[in-house]
Amino acid sequence: MFHEIVLAGETYAYETSTTKKQAEKIWLEAPRKTYVFEEDGKILGTYYLKTNQAGPGSHVCNCGYMVSSQARGKGLATSMCEHSQKMALELGYKAMQFNFVASSNEGAVRLWCKLGFETVGRLPNAFNHPIRGFVDALVMYKWLQT
Amino acid sequence: MFHEIVLAGETYAYETSTTKKQAEKIWLEAPRKTYVFEEDGKILGTYYLKTNQAGPGSHVCNCGYMVSSQARGKGLATSMCEHSQKMALELGYKAMQFNFVASSNEGAVRLWCKLGFETVGRLPNAFNHPIRGFVDALVMYKWLQT
Repeated sequence: MFHEIVLAGETYAYETSTTKKQAEKIWLEAPRKTYVFEEDGKILGTYYLKTNQAGPGSHVCNCGYMVSSQARGKGLATSMCEHSQKMALELGYKAMQFNFVASSNEGAVRLWCKLGFETVGRLPNAFNHPIRGFVDALVMYKWLQT
Repeated sequence: MFHEIVLAGETYAYETSTTKKQAEKIWLEAPRKTYVFEEDGKILGTYYLKTNQAGPGSHVCNCGYMVSSQARGKGLATSMCEHSQKMALELGYKAMQFNFVASSNEGAVRLWCKLGFETVGRLPNAFNHPIRGFVDALVMYKWLQT
């Protein structure tokens, strides 16, 4: 799943040449938590949760989500994002930030908005899309504590 | 210098408890380049330069600058920032991004603006300042290629 999504180069800021070992480090070892969503023993989706900035920024977490191409359109990203917000609060975070959302990834932007995230930043031409070329990247943010 | 600045907790998103070994990893090993500015064998300032996001984001770099308390007000931050922009272009980067500038760090914000950086994002209450409490953090950005 990681390989499929990263190879497309349209959504995640990882090298398309990322090896399995590097992917394990990025997705499983470096984050604070990683979850998978299974059905009949098959992994349909996964997300990680980690502290976004250390020290004075450590009350804000960051998540990344991946849905297998076979499992799209079933609301899995919504479920994972809602689950992650709940877990973030349980772990003591006050806010969640997505650092680098390709503005061309319109489905994701729409979904995060619907789930309460705001676009708080726009990085001009910061994402090099394989087809569209340089597009803006968005910073999205949600204060979780009420 | 690192210890002095990080211990204050007012500018950098590092733990105040960062050890010397961790600091070496953060400032000297992880970045692509690290420079020091010396006078009579004394280090007055230092900065690192690294790729901000991998893959589709790898044309944008990130820098962090530190000036020793004895060397403030001499234009060293300006010199380092100008040097870093030149080095960034030489290394093939097209833009430079500061991910997490405490909005309370007004001197830095003013200086980066003067040097051509724009505030492209504002993260509400993302920086926990030791005196002021939660303050906004800014994302600042400059396209370097002309």
